Amino acid sequence: MASNSDRKSIYRSRLGEIDKEALDYLSSLNEDYEILLEDLEGTEAHVIMLCKQNIISKEDAKLILKELEELKKKAVKGELELEGGFEDVHEFIESKVIEKLGLEVGGKLHTGRSRNDQIALDIRLRTRKYLIEIWEEALKLAEVLLAKAEEEQDTIIAHYTHLQQAQIGYLSQYLLAHLDHIIRDIERIKACYQRVNRSPLGACAIAGSTLPLDRELVARLLGFDGVIENSIDAVSSRDFALEALSIAAIMMTNLSRIAEDLIIWSTSEFDYVELPDSLASPSSIMPHKKNPCILELLRARTAKIIGLLTASLTLMKGIPTGYDRDLQEGKPLIWEALRETRRSIKIISKTVSQLKFKKDRLKEMAAKSYASALELAEALIKYSGLSLRESHKIVGSLVRRLHQSGTSFRDLSSQELSKELEKIAGRSLRIPQSVLEQILDVERLPQLRVTLGSSSPTEIKKQIEKRKRLLKEFGEEFKKIVKNLSDSRKYFEESLASILRD
Amino acid sequence: MASNSDRKSIYRSRLGEIDKEALDYLSSLNEDYEILLEDLEGTEAHVIMLCKQNIISKEDAKLILKELEELKKKAVKGELELEGGFEDVHEFIESKVIEKLGLEVGGKLHTGRSRNDQIALDIRLRTRKYLIEIWEEALKLAEVLLAKAEEEQDTIIAHYTHLQQAQIGYLSQYLLAHLDHIIRDIERIKACYQRVNRSPLGACAIAGSTLPLDRELVARLLGFDGVIENSIDAVSSRDFALEALSIAAIMMTNLSRIAEDLIIWSTSEFDYVELPDSLASPSSIMPHKKNPCILELLRARTAKIIGLLTASLTLMKGIPTGYDRDLQEGKPLIWEALRETRRSIKIISKTVSQLKFKKDRLKEMAAKSYASALELAEALIKYSGLSLRESHKIVGSLVRRLHQSGTSFRDLSSQELSKELEKIAGRSLRIPQSVLEQILDVERLPQLRVTLGSSSPTEIKKQIEKRKRLLKEFGEEFKKIVKNLSDSRKYFEESLASILRD
Amino acid sequence: MASNSDRKSIYRSRLGEIDKEALDYLSSLNEDYEILLEDLEGTEAHVIMLCKQNIISKEDAKLILKELEELKKKAVKGELELEGGFEDVHEFIESKVIEKLGLEVGGKLHTGRSRNDQIALDIRLRTRKYLIEIWEEALKLAEVLLAKAEEEQDTIIAHYTHLQQAQIGYLSQYLLAHLDHIIRDIERIKACYQRVNRSPLGACAIAGSTLPLDRELVARLLGFDGVIENSIDAVSSRDFALEALSIAAIMMTNLSRIAEDLIIWSTSEFDYVELPDSLASPSSIMPHKKNPCILELLRARTAKIIGLLTASLTLMKGIPTGYDRDLQEGKPLIWEALRETRRSIKIISKTVSQLKFKKDRLKEMAAKSYASALELAEALIKYSGLSLRESHKIVGSLVRRLHQSGTSFRDLSSQELSKELEKIAGRSLRIPQSVLEQILDVERLPQLRVTLGSSSPTEIKKQIEKRKRLLKEFGEEFKKIVKNLSDSRKYFEESLASILRD
Amino acid sequence: MASNSDRKSIYRSRLGEIDKEALDYLSSLNEDYEILLEDLEGTEAHVIMLCKQNIISKEDAKLILKELEELKKKAVKGELELEGGFEDVHEFIESKVIEKLGLEVGGKLHTGRSRNDQIALDIRLRTRKYLIEIWEEALKLAEVLLAKAEEEQDTIIAHYTHLQQAQIGYLSQYLLAHLDHIIRDIERIKACYQRVNRSPLGACAIAGSTLPLDRELVARLLGFDGVIENSIDAVSSRDFALEALSIAAIMMTNLSRIAEDLIIWSTSEFDYVELPDSLASPSSIMPHKKNPCILELLRARTAKIIGLLTASLTLMKGIPTGYDRDLQEGKPLIWEALRETRRSIKIISKTVSQLKFKKDRLKEMAAKSYASALELAEALIKYSGLSLRESHKIVGSLVRRLHQSGTSFRDLSSQELSKELEKIAGRSLRIPQSVLEQILDVERLPQLRVTLGSSSPTEIKKQIEKRKRLLKEFGEEFKKIVKNLSDSRKYFEESLASILRD
Repeated sequence: MASNSDRKSIYRSRLGEIDKEALDYLSSLNEDYEILLEDLEGTEAHVIMLCKQNIISKEDAKLILKELEELKKKAVKGELELEGGFEDVHEFIESKVIEKLGLEVGGKLHTGRSRNDQIALDIRLRTRKYLIEIWEEALKLAEVLLAKAEEEQDTIIAHYTHLQQAQIGYLSQYLLAHLDHIIRDIERIKACYQRVNRSPLGACAIAGSTLPLDRELVARLLGFDGVIENSIDAVSSRDFALEALSIAAIMMTNLSRIAEDLIIWSTSEFDYVELPDSLASPSSIMPHKKNPCILELLRARTAKIIGLLTASLTLMKGIPTGYDRDLQEGKPLIWEALRETRRSIKIISKTVSQLKFKKDRLKEMAAKSYASALELAEALIKYSGLSLRESHKIVGSLVRRLHQSGTSFRDLSSQELSKELEKIAGRSLRIPQSVLEQILDVERLPQLRVTLGSSSPTEIKKQIEKRKRLLKEFGEEFKKIVKNLSDSRKYFEESLASILRD
Repeated sequence: MASNSDRKSIYRSRLGEIDKEALDYLSSLNEDYEILLEDLEGTEAHVIMLCKQNIISKEDAKLILKELEELKKKAVKGELELEGGFEDVHEFIESKVIEKLGLEVGGKLHTGRSRNDQIALDIRLRTRKYLIEIWEEALKLAEVLLAKAEEEQDTIIAHYTHLQQAQIGYLSQYLLAHLDHIIRDIERIKACYQRVNRSPLGACAIAGSTLPLDRELVARLLGFDGVIENSIDAVSSRDFALEALSIAAIMMTNLSRIAEDLIIWSTSEFDYVELPDSLASPSSIMPHKKNPCILELLRARTAKIIGLLTASLTLMKGIPTGYDRDLQEGKPLIWEALRETRRSIKIISKTVSQLKFKKDRLKEMAAKSYASALELAEALIKYSGLSLRESHKIVGSLVRRLHQSGTSFRDLSSQELSKELEKIAGRSLRIPQSVLEQILDVERLPQLRVTLGSSSPTEIKKQIEKRKRLLKEFGEEFKKIVKNLSDSRKYFEESLASILRD
Repeated sequence: MASNSDRKSIYRSRLGEIDKEALDYLSSLNEDYEILLEDLEGTEAHVIMLCKQNIISKEDAKLILKELEELKKKAVKGELELEGGFEDVHEFIESKVIEKLGLEVGGKLHTGRSRNDQIALDIRLRTRKYLIEIWEEALKLAEVLLAKAEEEQDTIIAHYTHLQQAQIGYLSQYLLAHLDHIIRDIERIKACYQRVNRSPLGACAIAGSTLPLDRELVARLLGFDGVIENSIDAVSSRDFALEALSIAAIMMTNLSRIAEDLIIWSTSEFDYVELPDSLASPSSIMPHKKNPCILELLRARTAKIIGLLTASLTLMKGIPTGYDRDLQEGKPLIWEALRETRRSIKIISKTVSQLKFKKDRLKEMAAKSYASALELAEALIKYSGLSLRESHKIVGSLVRRLHQSGTSFRDLSSQELSKELEKIAGRSLRIPQSVLEQILDVERLPQLRVTLGSSSPTEIKKQIEKRKRLLKEFGEEFKKIVKNLSDSRKYFEESLASILRD
Repeated sequence: MASNSDRKSIYRSRLGEIDKEALDYLSSLNEDYEILLEDLEGTEAHVIMLCKQNIISKEDAKLILKELEELKKKAVKGELELEGGFEDVHEFIESKVIEKLGLEVGGKLHTGRSRNDQIALDIRLRTRKYLIEIWEEALKLAEVLLAKAEEEQDTIIAHYTHLQQAQIGYLSQYLLAHLDHIIRDIERIKACYQRVNRSPLGACAIAGSTLPLDRELVARLLGFDGVIENSIDAVSSRDFALEALSIAAIMMTNLSRIAEDLIIWSTSEFDYVELPDSLASPSSIMPHKKNPCILELLRARTAKIIGLLTASLTLMKGIPTGYDRDLQEGKPLIWEALRETRRSIKIISKTVSQLKFKKDRLKEMAAKSYASALELAEALIKYSGLSLRESHKIVGSLVRRLHQSGTSFRDLSSQELSKELEKIAGRSLRIPQSVLEQILDVERLPQLRVTLGSSSPTEIKKQIEKRKRLLKEFGEEFKKIVKNLSDSRKYFEESLASILRD
């Protein structure tokens, strides 16, 4: 038999040596740090199962697991260098074990397993970890938005459409809108998690094995909710990762809109909010600059994640069913997208939690705007019996006139306003002065609203209360998931220890 | 007041005339056929609610609803031309009604509503319809795959990795792998449907209304499961559509792989399957050609849908919160992606159901391949006590030799095979002849497999039975959804009739 | 022989009938209006060549060309309906001719040609036309930007980085920056045109023909600069179209930035510019709104074009060399991207040309900013012998102090400014009062700049003069291209007429 | 003045400390290794210019340049760790110099420069380097394809459309088709290089400087062909990089098609070519596998590059004119895309140069195909006076019959073929037996072709000769570019030395 000192790849039984440049082009070793621990633990679970199924002896299992534990210790300390002309982390680890234990024993580690199901396992383990972290960060961001929404319940702001002042309301409503988006993001994560958390191991190369592998045991050891049953599906599909990436991209597009709002709101011209120095960036040459760089980067990283999703989908397009090496290239795309998403949620949480809004400025800009025009038109509907279209015309005409003269509603008393409107309408309008006064009073106007979910004090309070309860439920569900994982972790460690100590 | 003959846009109360070219650039009228019916019905539901809430009188409601019914009748017959210098279908319809009923009555139709919540409603209604259709087609494709899998249970095929023959198994396993993907696609559709099927109407421009709109009534009339509560969220978010597009894109990447397989399998060189003439395309000049054009187009349309998703996400990146006109451009991207997905599922269903596989050719190619090498290596593990790595080396060496001499396993008798392996191993291997014979017999080899979900007769049978039950459940759930919609439809029609007949 | 009344596709000599649904999935007929004229003219050029080469007789050529002329006349009037169960415009036209002239004569039209080279021809002709139009619109936009830059030479503005006021300069400099981008866009178009404008016809199916086709004659007749020589390349490659799309996408990303600037500048908060009513859009319910919808749409269409480019590249990924039906799906992606680009350039030209900037507001916002900080720091370098880093610290400290007290530079006299700086520096700084005064005077500050291409009166004037000359050259080059096309057009028409009149 | 031991960022004169997490989110330090040398050399050129312009003294310049040289030496050896809480490589380097020389001297290095123009410079320098390398690799690939085309001039192959055998020709023609694509790729690179190779330095923050910077001197020192004149354009635009990425993506889509062809051709079923072991990859468990992994990875990397281009364009969409921090995120996208392109060209060059085609198998598969059907139809046109459509029908009918009986043309003698055709036609066809014989002889058939650029011996020879001359010209142009760069390099080094030695 070939000795351990054989320098050729352990897999090239049929093939001659590989070209150096081809190996460089092939190898994912540099990127495999990301799944080093997952690969080691997946391998350990596999060996534990092989042992329990008597496919390898307890003695061999013990020897192999000891070596894997050694490697894991080094890996945890960051001392395991992935180097030495291997195609990937899988070949690296198996080679390390064989180096120590020889082909006879070390060569048993990979029994009944192929890199095809192994890498699918690693990707699922790693994606699961990222999903858990994103889930957790999203829950925190939700809490931050909710707390801020509670805090800013009386902060008047003009709500914008087309970046033009539209209707006057409360900053809370804005924050709650984004909270609701995050809530849906979390729902999507939850659903995706169910599809990610299934074990492909045991599918072997593509068709399963003639050895009595216990697929469900491996799944249990690694905290999976079950197996991906069909062996071809297990090695060939990546829809779970594409789903995770889509969710990340959708989430990021929304965060990028918060970033955009805050970038605009912190211009000198808007002057609605000032970032704390600790979250702002200077210029290397302009001494006065205070730049919202983290927000710009979040916007840009949204673009990157869109590109990574595009790349991942494009990569899958039209490749034959089965494991193709194309899939290797998909791995770093997933990590990068999920990693950037995780830290982007975190940074936006911190940013939102530290924002100090300039309430007076916000109120002043709302007050001098025309953004009460709709409520005025609705008053004409309610009190004057006009149709929306008629009242739209009357108020529109008034705005036109005021704009030409450089004035706004607030430059009129309620009596003058009444008179102006009646002049345009050519008739009496019968709107109570008290109503006009409330419309002219930027702080009381939103209280006129009566519709479900509107930017009004009552509706905002109701929204806040409901979301408090909801986030509590969400938190408990999340804890349960984490608990499941840590339970299975214990089972894994006991199983491992039981072999090692015997 | 301005008369009906006023040719200016009904919305331009404050603004002067629009530039012709700007209107062309702005207008979505040409694309709004897609939501013509949705817009009409959404408007009717809105008017019914305005009436029930006494915001407009029963008389006015009746007049308006009659006009809308007229327009709907024409629209259903395809006789309603969207033309005449309007920004969109919303302006078109309101203008048509005002033309008939005047500003006093017709001008009430849009009370308490803005195009911002209206278009969000239309998009949700239309997306819902597409989702339902895709869901239905996906269920049918699942049935087709299952039926075919049942049919091809004894069809031997080499399963491929890297487009190289990997392991010998059954065509059924291939079909079941794709079935499982579709099953997950359906799960995603189901989850997305819950997020799509909520009514945004009543959010008004962005902050809600001072009129007593009953948002939940509108939701009920239109078959929604509830409302999108927060008014800003309702007009600003499109995550539900991005989710639908992502699901479509993920689904299509998988279908494109089936297409790729079939394109390759129907080459003269593979010759595994022949498309029926009815699904093939000729050359305009080469008399002999029979081209798999529908499969190539499905592959290409996958690319298109990836691009449409990219465009949709890119469009959302970094735009301010609130309704922005950018969102208008998103509409046709959604329709096109969902429409193409729907018909692609349909065509692949038809194709798969009509495929005639060339069983003898498939078996012959499997038989003359080296794809039993893994089972041979596993026999060395089981019977000779070798490690995987040792047996891999031995079998690899043998393949190398055979390949050089242009022969394969099947050119050896089980005795010769035994001898060759022992020669390489340098020792006796003790593999029972019966086992070697089974490995050499392409029809019996897969029966050696024992792992869950493998390409073996037992496991395939089990998979088929489970999926039969599952698809039945899926079918019932789907029926319930359809039933809910048709129930709410009745409620809508009764409510409408009750106003019209009074 | 089969009679003309045979309803089967003229191409399905070997194949049985096509399935209706498959035909719907296959057919590009609906999208082929875009190339109807190109296909007719390409076919005419082909027939003229066949005739000149004696491959078909003059009599037959005459009959065929007459029919094609008839179809062309109808097509020009928009009266040619593409309908009737054909795969594409090619089959449609040939079938129409055969319907009239029978298989014996009409059946000669397609001699020596395949749809593979024919569609490549059509795409090139159509892309060429779009490129010419985009080129022309880009030249016009360049002129508009140049004229506006000349007009706004004394309009003070704060130039922005990170959307924060950075340095004070002139609006002209901003406009010239975008002009220079357009100039590079035009250079790219010019280079791409050379690659587009080559004829693939005569490549036949993929390997050329045994008939004596004169490929260069067809090229000459259709205004091409030559042929795509290699027959496989001619039918298989689409890099020319991908290049055109890339150019469009790059151009649009830049236009989207102008749009973004103008959207922000026309908010009430910035108030730098007001769109004319004719280019603004109202709200259906808020009577006061004036929305920059065309600019938002341009931004969104940029996203669409990015998606179309993505789709086009994705479509080409990994398909076999040769003509694949995938390429069919690429056609509408090209048209849509180029069409949207063309009209976006046009609308931005109109918008820029009609903008009225609020000079006083622009100047006021610049004056009350800290955007002269860099020039102040440079004065410390020049007159006080400090390093940049020292002067950055001093001015930075001052800004910090002023910001905290809610004041700015302009609230200080030059003497006070001097004193403040010296207090921070802890030493005398020797900056001439006249220099400090110039820095404090927002209208004179930019005159201090001396570097090439800076935002200063002299450099702006120089830039304007150079670009005037450059655009003149560009205009002449463009005219030459157009002239070449019209010359070849004449040659085509004479050749056609000479056959028709004989 | 603040002392060197001040740990705060040298740029935060106005701002307080930055948050640790914000800095992590902001910092590009990890990615800036890519431009470390470029940044150092750009900085040196800047300092040389400051010195020549007497903006800083020769003494100071000397001290600073010495430090920069030290850093450069370390950087070249890979010993310069980019670490320590800096925003980027710019802050890192300036801080290192200030650490050594103090604020008074070291603080002068950045005079008249901002990170905005500096990073634009670095990106252009780095992109230029990548472009040069890609250009060189593309030239080599062109040579490889040409050499292979010359070698395979008599290798018969069936050319494919729709992955179905279409026309019989030569492998050379296939290789020449790809050569022509590469030639156009090179043309695009050449044009792009002109736009990349311009210096933005001296644009300062965005508006230029009041210090007498000599922008053209810096450009000359660094080998640029001139400056990007307008200061806003210089810091704000990235079209040059988007253009480079587009070119890379277009190039890769084509290479991915070669990869796809070779993957398919090296299946057991096609068996046209076998990869050398040195370029193939094994399975970890299936001893017999020989997988074309490098080709699959090239296909996948095409997807990645498409995604990177998408990300880059998306990133630019709708951000304000001027430098935005978004641009930072664009850098690694560029490097990754260009790096992957470079090595993909290299690996495909090596692969193509080492391919051994199985000529007999290729010929056999062509011979037993129906791919001479078109030439047969053309014979009917030439000798029997039939129209294409008639002859298409006749030959199509024959193929149908033969296919049903499982035979092909070659199973017929020329006499039998003649008879079969006449039977279908119902008349005598008068095709010379010698012609039919040539059509039936796969090795002589392609000689019948007469059209320009066809797959025939004469045309292939002509193509090869022309491309030999063309590639020679291309090589000389490239050498000139390289020469220019090395000349300017000398000028740079002399200028540097002259200051250092004084």
